[in-house]
Amino acid sequence: MEKVNISAKLNTFNEYWNPKIVGDINESYVKLAKLKGEFVWHMHENEDEMFMVISGKLVIRLHAEDITLNEGEFFIIPRGIEHMPVAEEEVHVMLLEPKTTLNTGNVKNERTVEVLEKI
Amino acid sequence: MEKVNISAKLNTFNEYWNPKIVGDINESYVKLAKLKGEFVWHMHENEDEMFMVISGKLVIRLHAEDITLNEGEFFIIPRGIEHMPVAEEEVHVMLLEPKTTLNTGNVKNERTVEVLEKI
Repeated sequence: MEKVNISAKLNTFNEYWNPKIVGDINESYVKLAKLKGEFVWHMHENEDEMFMVISGKLVIRLHAEDITLNEGEFFIIPRGIEHMPVAEEEVHVMLLEPKTTLNTGNVKNERTVEVLEKI
Repeated sequence: MEKVNISAKLNTFNEYWNPKIVGDINESYVKLAKLKGEFVWHMHENEDEMFMVISGKLVIRLHAEDITLNEGEFFIIPRGIEHMPVAEEEVHVMLLEPKTTLNTGNVKNERTVEVLEKI
């Protein structure tokens, strides 16, 4: 059984929009990701999703409002709510979501990551 | 829908060993707690539990080894594993565990918190 040092794990990869699994807890995975630029509008029909900013700034666009997350802040996107993450500059995030969650939710396109790497 | 600023939430309470609910995600709660001193040996029969250190240092004693967590580190205690958190000095932690989880797990004593506050 090993602890996870978040910074050390983040240092092991560079690609954007490709979450890595760093923890397995009950029915969910803890993931780390580096994001830059705009993602795609999507939603997860049956899954709430948590975004926590480790460093940088992330905007989560919802149709009703923009949620701006800085370091040390998190937001839980309720199931069924369409959202689009946007990072003007590189941002590092921790995610928590059910193991069944696809990064692009109800949308499948070139941004979809079918198989996540464990690091 | 509101984001959570972890430091701001931690500033709203002072008591030790009394986790506060700050997020509701799928079947779990995200909680914040301030810990100091020794807790009790216990385990959660059917629930994995995540401890992430926001500030300070936390030792999670297991029978096999001690896991020492510093800021920016987390550990997932698998279900069924007896553990005892120990904080020599005050430590601030984020917890993630199923809504059914009791802080003292299979033990009930004066440290048991039956009803958690949402902040």
